[in-house]
Amino acid sequence: MMPTPLDEHQLVRDLAETNDSKIVLLVADGIGGLPIEPGGPTELEAASTPNLDALAASGVLGSSQPVLPGITPGSGPGHLGLFGYDPLAYRIGRGALEATGIGFELGPHDVAARGNFCSLDANGLVTDRRAGRIPSEESFKVVERLQGLEIEGVEVFVRPVKEHRFVVVFRGEGLDGRVADTDPQATGVPPLNPQPLDPAAERTAEIAAAFIAASRQLLADEPKANGMTLRGFADRPQLPSYEELYRLRAAAIAVYPMYKGLARLAGMTLVGECTTLSEQIDTLAKCWDDHDFFFLHFKYTDSTGEDGDFAAKVRRIEELDAAIPRMTELGPEVLIVTGDHSTPSRLRSHSWHPVPTLLASPNCRPDRCVAFGERDCLQGGLGIFPAKHLMLLAMGHALRLGKFGA
Amino acid sequence: MMPTPLDEHQLVRDLAETNDSKIVLLVADGIGGLPIEPGGPTELEAASTPNLDALAASGVLGSSQPVLPGITPGSGPGHLGLFGYDPLAYRIGRGALEATGIGFELGPHDVAARGNFCSLDANGLVTDRRAGRIPSEESFKVVERLQGLEIEGVEVFVRPVKEHRFVVVFRGEGLDGRVADTDPQATGVPPLNPQPLDPAAERTAEIAAAFIAASRQLLADEPKANGMTLRGFADRPQLPSYEELYRLRAAAIAVYPMYKGLARLAGMTLVGECTTLSEQIDTLAKCWDDHDFFFLHFKYTDSTGEDGDFAAKVRRIEELDAAIPRMTELGPEVLIVTGDHSTPSRLRSHSWHPVPTLLASPNCRPDRCVAFGERDCLQGGLGIFPAKHLMLLAMGHALRLGKFGA
Repeated sequence: MMPTPLDEHQLVRDLAETNDSKIVLLVADGIGGLPIEPGGPTELEAASTPNLDALAASGVLGSSQPVLPGITPGSGPGHLGLFGYDPLAYRIGRGALEATGIGFELGPHDVAARGNFCSLDANGLVTDRRAGRIPSEESFKVVERLQGLEIEGVEVFVRPVKEHRFVVVFRGEGLDGRVADTDPQATGVPPLNPQPLDPAAERTAEIAAAFIAASRQLLADEPKANGMTLRGFADRPQLPSYEELYRLRAAAIAVYPMYKGLARLAGMTLVGECTTLSEQIDTLAKCWDDHDFFFLHFKYTDSTGEDGDFAAKVRRIEELDAAIPRMTELGPEVLIVTGDHSTPSRLRSHSWHPVPTLLASPNCRPDRCVAFGERDCLQGGLGIFPAKHLMLLAMGHALRLGKFGA
Repeated sequence: MMPTPLDEHQLVRDLAETNDSKIVLLVADGIGGLPIEPGGPTELEAASTPNLDALAASGVLGSSQPVLPGITPGSGPGHLGLFGYDPLAYRIGRGALEATGIGFELGPHDVAARGNFCSLDANGLVTDRRAGRIPSEESFKVVERLQGLEIEGVEVFVRPVKEHRFVVVFRGEGLDGRVADTDPQATGVPPLNPQPLDPAAERTAEIAAAFIAASRQLLADEPKANGMTLRGFADRPQLPSYEELYRLRAAAIAVYPMYKGLARLAGMTLVGECTTLSEQIDTLAKCWDDHDFFFLHFKYTDSTGEDGDFAAKVRRIEELDAAIPRMTELGPEVLIVTGDHSTPSRLRSHSWHPVPTLLASPNCRPDRCVAFGERDCLQGGLGIFPAKHLMLLAMGHALRLGKFGA
């Protein structure tokens, strides 16, 4: 038998040191793209980015692979990779991601599930699996009626999402997310009872069943949303924190709940209440002295890609470029500009293509690249590398990792 | 401790989707090469390949690493990698590969071994380990005499290979390939008895011993081939099939038994009875609608390399290039041109050098390469990647993989 290699996280724990350096991780969501027509430039190549190009010239470029070649990540795995967690090892269950996405702060003893209101007939058979897609305002009121509901031995939180969708979180010792979905995926039949998928989840299944039964009584008079199904039961993912792994006081400066939630799972502190990039940079400057690591999330390179709007994505990249000088002025030892995945406007969706990555630091070894673009990144000094190794590069360039072995 | 990462095959099973796309994997066996003299081009660089160069310009290049840096693969591991199986995890035992190579269709309950006829003296001691390398015609007759041989509890198949070499396959429930070789590697001693290397293989060892004893009686009057040794006992490798892993209806269009056999192990359907590349493409066109994935094998880039004939290998590459338009005309979503390994004519053998790889697809992100050659591939957008990930790239570009995580 070969000896087991040292686990990468343990390596980081062993080597992490502290100093006064600052690391900024600027995530332009979905920044990677494709030519909109054969022979043309990608969004990033088409954009006028004098500031990023100057950083590319002095810094080092590469292409980050979010999961594996050919694999398209969702936002969860995409960010976990950038944050240094192997997305194939640390998986966020559907319920936990949904709770995270609406900004619900999951605790270590929580089990979360996605809920759908449904319509039941007098015999308890499903007549509409989505309760007629009731509008959010109506649904929010139904959720409110469920707030007071008490189930013995656990705390229960119910939060609205959109239309017929909501999130329920059970909090208590000894819960376990291995519970099967209750959606029968058909009408004319009753919802399924929550079944444990592992003996350890028996109590959780009972609690879910008690919650469903109590809800049914409470909602008996609802015209449409008089029943519910629960799906994607999930524990809170247990990620070792940035403090523990990297000895970094990490701050997250994000606008949308999903990214705040993902950062919180890694133990980052949420700072600022921002709605614009400019406000995010204000916040960055304001809390510069209180933290060592800053995750800034910029959503619009992804949303314009999802819209299939090449020109709008180009403009969003130019907006990002214009904001770069305010960040470099703060003098970070390491400034990384990358994305959690590619979102080519030609595909109108996330994709598997590697993500252009720029690392600027006085300690980097410059390559020959003089512009920030997908094809430039292929010539870059970081090569094509797994996203989960980006944090090692950040820590190394910040001189925050001691020598491995003597 | 970090949690265990999701197994890559399970990931593919979870994400695989079906659509109408077609994937063509054109394997030019041993295509990678070396300059025949310092400063010169490789075979691929020397060849005039206008069609492949055009694909290189619109597509994406890379270098595939069959096993690990520096490791030279045989045909088995080389193809397993291309087919998406980790060649270090899925190993094809010698006996199973030999059976596959002569076109014997191994079943799930088979144990195969390579046989050598040998010459024994009156005391049963080996006088010639290769029975004087008897010519194939003679050996075939000896094999024929063994055909009727019955061993209780199993079916026995004996097939000639070449000269003194043959294959024996035992078929029956509960067999196990962990049996030691019987070749004593010396003369003047008797062949070894088949010994189980694991308690589970005891019965198989007994069956092999019974087969050897019965053969000895039957062949007592043979002038040279009156004994045998058996080596490389092996179970049929259990590969998850293309249907199960990728939800692909896969077809193999190959000329030689070895490559047909390897494709069959992956669950591909063998189509066509071809002897030329032109016939292979006829077959491709004919069965285009019935399959989603097509493996085409072209042998002569390897055999000319093995012959050390640089010029002939160049001509074979040009022959392949000339056939490209007939394939692109069919409109595959993904066309991959690569090899299972390099066979530089300068080395007259397989080698460890990475394999030039071209992926053409409307969904690929073009790099700056405009020609298909080893040095061009180093600048390509696929980088240097493990061969076992090629199928992930094929599936991704065919839009046949759903998003990983939300």
